Amino acid sequence: MIGMIKVGILGATGFTGEKLVEILLSHPEVKLTYIASRVKKSTLYSDIFPKFFKKTSLKCQPLKIKKAIDSCDLLFLSLPHTVSMKFVPKILAKGKKVIDLSADYRFKKSSTYKIFYKKEHQDKKNLKKSVYGLTELFKEKIKKAQLIANPGCYPTSIIIALYPLLAEKLVKGKIVIDSKSSITGSGRRATIDYHYSNVANNFWAYKPFIHQHQPEVAEVLGEKLTKSLSFSFLPQVASFESGIYSTIHLSFKKKVNKEKLNRIYNKYYQDSPFIRISDKLPKLKDAAGTNFSDIGFAVDKKGYEAIVVSSLDNLVKGAAGQAVQNMNLMFGLEETTGLLLL
Amino acid sequence: MIGMIKVGILGATGFTGEKLVEILLSHPEVKLTYIASRVKKSTLYSDIFPKFFKKTSLKCQPLKIKKAIDSCDLLFLSLPHTVSMKFVPKILAKGKKVIDLSADYRFKKSSTYKIFYKKEHQDKKNLKKSVYGLTELFKEKIKKAQLIANPGCYPTSIIIALYPLLAEKLVKGKIVIDSKSSITGSGRRATIDYHYSNVANNFWAYKPFIHQHQPEVAEVLGEKLTKSLSFSFLPQVASFESGIYSTIHLSFKKKVNKEKLNRIYNKYYQDSPFIRISDKLPKLKDAAGTNFSDIGFAVDKKGYEAIVVSSLDNLVKGAAGQAVQNMNLMFGLEETTGLLLL
Amino acid sequence: MIGMIKVGILGATGFTGEKLVEILLSHPEVKLTYIASRVKKSTLYSDIFPKFFKKTSLKCQPLKIKKAIDSCDLLFLSLPHTVSMKFVPKILAKGKKVIDLSADYRFKKSSTYKIFYKKEHQDKKNLKKSVYGLTELFKEKIKKAQLIANPGCYPTSIIIALYPLLAEKLVKGKIVIDSKSSITGSGRRATIDYHYSNVANNFWAYKPFIHQHQPEVAEVLGEKLTKSLSFSFLPQVASFESGIYSTIHLSFKKKVNKEKLNRIYNKYYQDSPFIRISDKLPKLKDAAGTNFSDIGFAVDKKGYEAIVVSSLDNLVKGAAGQAVQNMNLMFGLEETTGLLLL
Amino acid sequence: MIGMIKVGILGATGFTGEKLVEILLSHPEVKLTYIASRVKKSTLYSDIFPKFFKKTSLKCQPLKIKKAIDSCDLLFLSLPHTVSMKFVPKILAKGKKVIDLSADYRFKKSSTYKIFYKKEHQDKKNLKKSVYGLTELFKEKIKKAQLIANPGCYPTSIIIALYPLLAEKLVKGKIVIDSKSSITGSGRRATIDYHYSNVANNFWAYKPFIHQHQPEVAEVLGEKLTKSLSFSFLPQVASFESGIYSTIHLSFKKKVNKEKLNRIYNKYYQDSPFIRISDKLPKLKDAAGTNFSDIGFAVDKKGYEAIVVSSLDNLVKGAAGQAVQNMNLMFGLEETTGLLLL
Repeated sequence: MIGMIKVGILGATGFTGEKLVEILLSHPEVKLTYIASRVKKSTLYSDIFPKFFKKTSLKCQPLKIKKAIDSCDLLFLSLPHTVSMKFVPKILAKGKKVIDLSADYRFKKSSTYKIFYKKEHQDKKNLKKSVYGLTELFKEKIKKAQLIANPGCYPTSIIIALYPLLAEKLVKGKIVIDSKSSITGSGRRATIDYHYSNVANNFWAYKPFIHQHQPEVAEVLGEKLTKSLSFSFLPQVASFESGIYSTIHLSFKKKVNKEKLNRIYNKYYQDSPFIRISDKLPKLKDAAGTNFSDIGFAVDKKGYEAIVVSSLDNLVKGAAGQAVQNMNLMFGLEETTGLLLL
Repeated sequence: MIGMIKVGILGATGFTGEKLVEILLSHPEVKLTYIASRVKKSTLYSDIFPKFFKKTSLKCQPLKIKKAIDSCDLLFLSLPHTVSMKFVPKILAKGKKVIDLSADYRFKKSSTYKIFYKKEHQDKKNLKKSVYGLTELFKEKIKKAQLIANPGCYPTSIIIALYPLLAEKLVKGKIVIDSKSSITGSGRRATIDYHYSNVANNFWAYKPFIHQHQPEVAEVLGEKLTKSLSFSFLPQVASFESGIYSTIHLSFKKKVNKEKLNRIYNKYYQDSPFIRISDKLPKLKDAAGTNFSDIGFAVDKKGYEAIVVSSLDNLVKGAAGQAVQNMNLMFGLEETTGLLLL
Repeated sequence: MIGMIKVGILGATGFTGEKLVEILLSHPEVKLTYIASRVKKSTLYSDIFPKFFKKTSLKCQPLKIKKAIDSCDLLFLSLPHTVSMKFVPKILAKGKKVIDLSADYRFKKSSTYKIFYKKEHQDKKNLKKSVYGLTELFKEKIKKAQLIANPGCYPTSIIIALYPLLAEKLVKGKIVIDSKSSITGSGRRATIDYHYSNVANNFWAYKPFIHQHQPEVAEVLGEKLTKSLSFSFLPQVASFESGIYSTIHLSFKKKVNKEKLNRIYNKYYQDSPFIRISDKLPKLKDAAGTNFSDIGFAVDKKGYEAIVVSSLDNLVKGAAGQAVQNMNLMFGLEETTGLLLL
Repeated sequence: MIGMIKVGILGATGFTGEKLVEILLSHPEVKLTYIASRVKKSTLYSDIFPKFFKKTSLKCQPLKIKKAIDSCDLLFLSLPHTVSMKFVPKILAKGKKVIDLSADYRFKKSSTYKIFYKKEHQDKKNLKKSVYGLTELFKEKIKKAQLIANPGCYPTSIIIALYPLLAEKLVKGKIVIDSKSSITGSGRRATIDYHYSNVANNFWAYKPFIHQHQPEVAEVLGEKLTKSLSFSFLPQVASFESGIYSTIHLSFKKKVNKEKLNRIYNKYYQDSPFIRISDKLPKLKDAAGTNFSDIGFAVDKKGYEAIVVSSLDNLVKGAAGQAVQNMNLMFGLEETTGLLLL
């Protein structure tokens, strides 16, 4: 690289935007040149979030897309779903790169998008160009991409765990995915449901059979999924401060054991510095705050049933961290740059 | 009833024993006459747990089984597994009633006990007499029992949710049970694993495929289980202060819908004041601290898959509360006495 | 008592209103006949708060003051400040009793009210009649009162701890009161400040020198306060789910020791079943969920300095519990009725 | 600097040792060459703490002091009190630098040490050489020191807040310091008191008037303290995961206002990159995980009373972070190196 990468963030005051700022401030090859959100006037970012006082003197600005494009090589879009697609065409037209953390460019089929996000897609042209940014699976495409659709947090957690087993055509029958997430996954919103007293010491399941991340997983796993496979995905809210912990119950066509699963996972992820594989079940806190994705598993005595656990930080590997990992690849950097020691 | 029931607790300083004291102190038909634990000398219970100061002047005593038997009509045994079976024969011999909250009398087959609790059963004779105290299922037997094996917390959570569907022979294939429990389920133990810093904001799975509650469920559901059914049970530790939240993923032989599940659950539990059925998924906190068992469910669009959620307080309905519910029946009281408004 | 006391709650969906319902449902001498809040139409209380399902079939109604008055002997007003004073005159006029949990009738001087609650008092006439409901201090007046101004949570915590020492004229100089409260003290409000992520693992001080509870304490302690005394009161938000923990640092005119403080506190509170005095410092959780007020203290070696800790549940002894304690007295019941074993 | 600083940690598995590893792994001028603890044999650090898997392949070794000295330029001693003083003389004798995080070298007077740590000091000679490592106050001495006594967490929090006001001779009368700390301040110990269930949602004061950090503060502030000043210090345990939040109530000899306090704090800390001064009261979480020390204050209307809040992370600025800040100075680095963006 000659010079620093000039980077901007649109939507810098949500949980994901804030985490992006945090990560990018310590990234050795990045200069944060533009951050914007729904502020009314240019405001010190540390006045919005006092934790950044003396860490950065950046100002958060009312979003002006032209200014954003002009001042950056790449823009992270940490905007609500259905908003990103207004800006993406303009950014691409100027030859700048985009990593969109919303769902707007995740589905190849705009019809699926419409079903789950209740809106006609406004930028079908670029939809085709977008690369799904699950780094470990699409590294080569990501390196050449101009537009990345950064994965949802649940799908990241699920796909990383399932992909190798499905690619090996080992799995049969119903795959049960029971996922637990921090409330931060629902965004920084003032609602009585997210009041401290409603979340502390609480736990609940929601959107059974209808969560919008289910089709995302299905699309990405795509041809790996045969008709003989079915899914049951249940998202849940837990009171840990950050993280997603997915437990995946599945059955095999033929007998396996720990060693075999170890070999398979290592085969697919040997060049993936952020995947940590273990034949013990991980604890969530070991991944919290990091860009690691921890995969652990157990096989029953007979060898035809397994439980795979996938544990990661929903705001890091599940959002901002993976976005930066993708940025690294897009600019020819080591994928771990600025991410390994979070 | 003529007069109060004289009740004792052996093992009054564990989480379950403490909860028993709490519940029994406000029970209108009970007089707590004897509580014992591993104290060295008779000690004010409120000196051990200051929260009981001015609530009770009971003393906790070094366990003397003769004294215990003489002073009580019924004894709750809240002792470690393998310890209860030393005392039970003596208590029964004197014609007193016992509710054992350990696992010692839960298995009809002593061989299963040996596999999971690593010890030869010492009281096979009484094993046969014991009644499994899952109140909702065995009400009539409990009324006449002298010895109750109070169910484990996970099994209570699971069996209540599964029984009606299995009894109706609706379910096929693999039943996945993903359970999350408070750390209190592991007992009051000084270990670094249970240190505040290791549990707060953490979450982890443990004992995949080998938890001792799996055979307990299997034995109780017994003939309801056909060869075509299999289980995957995963216990997990969450950082909520109390509770078990089990999510059960299952498939049906024929098409169902919410209304049908509602009818089935209501058919089995219409006379069960502590079962609360809903076609919404419950939140854990609504059951926390109470003797209720909340059952909620969702059916997928096609009608062949469902998720059933079972939510309860692991120390109340999952232990001390259900024990008192059983006691009520054994003494001819309303089963809700002293329990409804916890 | 002949017959049950018919009781209503105006404002039944705030934290305090909900706690009142919980306590009153298990009160042996009370029939909850009317509960109202800002609902649009009559709604099952258990539809608003599912935890009450199968505990009560009460309906929460849109507030109709005439209906409220007609159906009750006593009304608890758990309404926002400045709202209660609209209803109180009507209730009193019909000869019914009122316990107002807002600040509207706490100050004898309406001018103080205006300064801190930013509104002219609308019912100065009844202000004079109101009795400040700090049960332990004003028991005799409460027994005869028609209108009780139930104390604020911080003042309850502070006054109980300070009163005996001030009454004995022991204290001199500056009294520092450092209080930590659960966020529930600020009411059930949808604001980003109370979002789980902002409160969990956080801690902060607020309103230094200007909290509205400071003048409440000053007025109640009244003539006990001489010119030689001054206060520094700091309210803080902690992430425990319920409670107030006040640590009070003070100096003495003459030498004291633990025994002396013990004697003084016992002298003033010997007939107070809810005051628990100890020469050890209490832990918050021992009082959480109860109507107890725990007082502990320590004296320095020289005997001229002490720290007094006052610990209670802000929603129980600091609000709903004390209100019921007052109700008991107003109706000639034992003050502990329905409260001792919460 | 020519080459990396070779650094070792004795006591790498306590909370502070672990935090040191975390910080030093990302320090650009440090090579961690030796880490030791009470392990029985050389063990991958990531086997002890799985969160370090793929972050470091360091092994934790049984402590061999000769090996430690030979392989390092500087040793951090994160050992229990009374253990450090066995090793320090040997390290100094070999010309290596030491930062001791225990209390062993904090008191100039060994008699004070004996009173509070119940043991005769074993290395009085080096006691005199040690420099108290409160970076902001003793920067020049630290630069030249061979032995640093790293401050206690409470003293760091208190001294930073008080020093400027005392140095300006503004304060009079009693200074009340009410401090709340994470349980991590008590070390990683398996005791029932630190069990999750005893700490979650709890809060308590301990060691009133006798905490060992009180004399540490007194000694450091030293001649700044006149006879007219007295202290009341109360340490407390809160359930936040990390941090110390000290609220300091004090009185002034002459009238002050916010602007004046701002000027004073800025005068003393203008060259202190980790001190963040504000005339608002800080929230704990803004400093959590960082090396910042947040100072906020409020003055009452009359101008003779103030509350100063001091908020920091007990394991970072209160221990490991400040230790690294001192190391930076001892090796001629910018004091912020590797610390600013934690």
